[in-house]
Amino acid sequence: MNLPVVSVILLVVSTVHAFQYTELAQYIDSHQEEYVEALRDWVAIESDSSNVQKRPELHRMMEMTAQKLRLMGGTVELVDIGEQELPDGQTVTLPKVVTAQFGNDPSKVTVCVYGHVDVQPAKLEDGWATEPYNLTDINGNLYGRGASDNKAPVLAWIHAVGAYQALNMELPVNVKYVIEGMEETGSNGLDAMILAQRDTFFSDVDYIIISDCSWLSRRPALTYGTRGNCYFFAEVEGPKQDLHSGVYGGTVIEPMTDLIGILDTMINPSGKILIPGIREAVAPLSDEEWKMYQDIEFDVENYKSKIGVSHLMYTNKVDLLAHLWRYPTVTIHGIEGAFSDRGTKTVIPLRLSLIYHVIFLYPVVVMLQVTDYLHSVFAKRKSPNKLKVTMVIGAKPWLADPQQALYEAGKAAVRRVFDMEPDLIREGGTIPIAKTFQDVTGKSIIMMPIGGFDDGLHSQNEKMSRYNYIEGTKLFIAYLNEVSKIQKTSV
Amino acid sequence: MNLPVVSVILLVVSTVHAFQYTELAQYIDSHQEEYVEALRDWVAIESDSSNVQKRPELHRMMEMTAQKLRLMGGTVELVDIGEQELPDGQTVTLPKVVTAQFGNDPSKVTVCVYGHVDVQPAKLEDGWATEPYNLTDINGNLYGRGASDNKAPVLAWIHAVGAYQALNMELPVNVKYVIEGMEETGSNGLDAMILAQRDTFFSDVDYIIISDCSWLSRRPALTYGTRGNCYFFAEVEGPKQDLHSGVYGGTVIEPMTDLIGILDTMINPSGKILIPGIREAVAPLSDEEWKMYQDIEFDVENYKSKIGVSHLMYTNKVDLLAHLWRYPTVTIHGIEGAFSDRGTKTVIPLRLSLIYHVIFLYPVVVMLQVTDYLHSVFAKRKSPNKLKVTMVIGAKPWLADPQQALYEAGKAAVRRVFDMEPDLIREGGTIPIAKTFQDVTGKSIIMMPIGGFDDGLHSQNEKMSRYNYIEGTKLFIAYLNEVSKIQKTSV
Repeated sequence: MNLPVVSVILLVVSTVHAFQYTELAQYIDSHQEEYVEALRDWVAIESDSSNVQKRPELHRMMEMTAQKLRLMGGTVELVDIGEQELPDGQTVTLPKVVTAQFGNDPSKVTVCVYGHVDVQPAKLEDGWATEPYNLTDINGNLYGRGASDNKAPVLAWIHAVGAYQALNMELPVNVKYVIEGMEETGSNGLDAMILAQRDTFFSDVDYIIISDCSWLSRRPALTYGTRGNCYFFAEVEGPKQDLHSGVYGGTVIEPMTDLIGILDTMINPSGKILIPGIREAVAPLSDEEWKMYQDIEFDVENYKSKIGVSHLMYTNKVDLLAHLWRYPTVTIHGIEGAFSDRGTKTVIPLRLSLIYHVIFLYPVVVMLQVTDYLHSVFAKRKSPNKLKVTMVIGAKPWLADPQQALYEAGKAAVRRVFDMEPDLIREGGTIPIAKTFQDVTGKSIIMMPIGGFDDGLHSQNEKMSRYNYIEGTKLFIAYLNEVSKIQKTSV
Repeated sequence: MNLPVVSVILLVVSTVHAFQYTELAQYIDSHQEEYVEALRDWVAIESDSSNVQKRPELHRMMEMTAQKLRLMGGTVELVDIGEQELPDGQTVTLPKVVTAQFGNDPSKVTVCVYGHVDVQPAKLEDGWATEPYNLTDINGNLYGRGASDNKAPVLAWIHAVGAYQALNMELPVNVKYVIEGMEETGSNGLDAMILAQRDTFFSDVDYIIISDCSWLSRRPALTYGTRGNCYFFAEVEGPKQDLHSGVYGGTVIEPMTDLIGILDTMINPSGKILIPGIREAVAPLSDEEWKMYQDIEFDVENYKSKIGVSHLMYTNKVDLLAHLWRYPTVTIHGIEGAFSDRGTKTVIPLRLSLIYHVIFLYPVVVMLQVTDYLHSVFAKRKSPNKLKVTMVIGAKPWLADPQQALYEAGKAAVRRVFDMEPDLIREGGTIPIAKTFQDVTGKSIIMMPIGGFDDGLHSQNEKMSRYNYIEGTKLFIAYLNEVSKIQKTSV
């Protein structure tokens, strides 16, 4: 190999296409209002993937996304990923996955940006201060469902490529997009699509970039791990119909009491998981990790005041970060089938509970552990009712090496745009597709968030700040340049 | 006092107005279809008092009831009972109470029939086999929300008076009606109205008749007691907004876990109430009661198959009846504020629970016992979240002497129409207005059900059988005659 010669040639190329960051950044700044309008158009679409009634909106959202990429001259496809089976046995068409490609120069690095344009449910009466599907600018914050999760980041990646095009600058890398519409309910159909296109669309992809996460503080961050998520339904079935609690109460062994009884055995008031084997399977924090966590910018008082609580489960930063990122926890989400509207109702309900499990472990093991445990606890009650436990989402955790070249490029881009070092963080939430990308394509993944630490993902009053949206777009522009250099040193 | 003479005079009057039961019963039979149509018209009105959106329907229901009584020549009033305060502080007009009077002969007994024309919520998708507000006749059963609770019984009382009128027979007693529209949510405003009219509308009332209950088996029944009902909200308040369980789970002390934890301490799997003082306040079953319960027609296997369970909390009839009628129980109704739709959602919710309490005890005592207990259990959790316990309904139990003349008249009427002795039963459900009538007017009350044991009150597929509706109307006709005789013997 004649390494030095090749290196010289590439240096020449690099000079010809010198990175004109200042011009690109100015272009972004001067088009800020246009970008806000684009976000407004996207937020206006109630692309709630958890609500089958909203499926037409979701289809429209995918079509709009494809159309935007087509108008920029990309090679765009709407990939059919089949149907979704509903709990009642009916089927409904899944939203198509949008794939797009800009540039196909085999000498360049090819990155693939993953994002999603579906959203969590939101209603004004849930406690939103503004209409959730009408993007509202208050003091530089853009409030709307899906603004931060994940519509603005997807748009920022589109604007980044658009800026290069508008200034007639050659893209330093080939850019592909994979944009789905089922992320909020478990990326139904996407795994199979990635597997099917492993040797076609994904064959020339070098790196996968995901921006479906947030910073931890006001300091920019790169994310190198996410927790898994095992989501269970536990159903207790009793009488064949709802019964008047006055007329029957006292004689019937009530499913709700059974359900409450078994849910109460999962986690104690100190946050200790009581399901055998779950916590034990996670390795203790290493000294190195402890040191790393200790150095991260994380203001406990600020965190408490942001979420509005006087006490957290742990008092020090390292314990809190470890329980956010690497240890399992149990959240109980609600009880289906019972009366849930405001007001009084006198019925003995018979139905379902949702249990949620955020766990840094592998789903198959967790599924057995949780199912066995709940059945054993239920058996002790000697109830005639029937318990059924189902794991409806089993998302694997993901972990990367934050010292690899892909992350070094990210650090360089952050330095360029923000003039500081990023925090290296993990994410409590789950981005299961990261693990799939890694397993199926064998490629490395970087998570590069631009969402703010206080964006309120999945909550009322979700927002994206103009600052993060616009500076985030610049970060992506800079990153496309930085990531193009990796190949050079490795040729 | 010259008792014998008075008695003779009344005997003469009694001869002149000899009771022509056969003619009246034939009239009822021949007007069956007209009565079914009247019920269809009433069931068609969605007079759901728990849903403020349906308030116009409820007002219309009261107006229709008044109009029906006016057309029969009654002295009818629509009594304004003020406004209802909603949880959000807004107010909404309460449905007026309909009062009516037929006859005002001071020498006759005056009975006052109480009933209600509001209903529980019902939706087809809750599991109804037919449209709940479209009365549907299937094999002689009339399915529809409110058919049995309490529209058909109210109509039967109206038809009873109408039959006397149609055959130009003098009513043996003066008949008054009090028909309200807020029964299903706690008879808001009715207590005050009864108190206000104690010395006017209610001053000449001798007996109060309530038909808002059901038989226990296929055998007709008279009801001499109802349980009380203490209905609580327990609210646990945590973070200032819903949080993404992936992003925050593990660090936050979750309100749902707290709520499940305290709800689980109220009642054990064997049905034992763990709140100190509640069960202890109820006297043990006396030998006499045991004997009485033992003689009642109650088929345990039939009861089990009706509600569709393999086991009940107790195996023998007496234990079951005692726990239906006289012992307290706890029903947990549902959890507000959390996600309750079908599907998955990843939010840490912060809100409310409904707890229900059917108790044969006085509400003020229960309120303190439950509130103190839940706060003490919550305190042990050392949670930073806030617990608020509120009793939103406190309905007193009611008990009558089933050997008094009023009940003897009922037994005679049952013998006349059904040719058998009625069961003497209590009701698990609450009819709090009975206690109010008793306390305010000082008059005796009889509960005379015509609803079938399997009518499904408050459930899906509520029905009233044609048999019970029509024979029930005859029972009321016979009872008006029997009750008119009480005065004679006591003059």
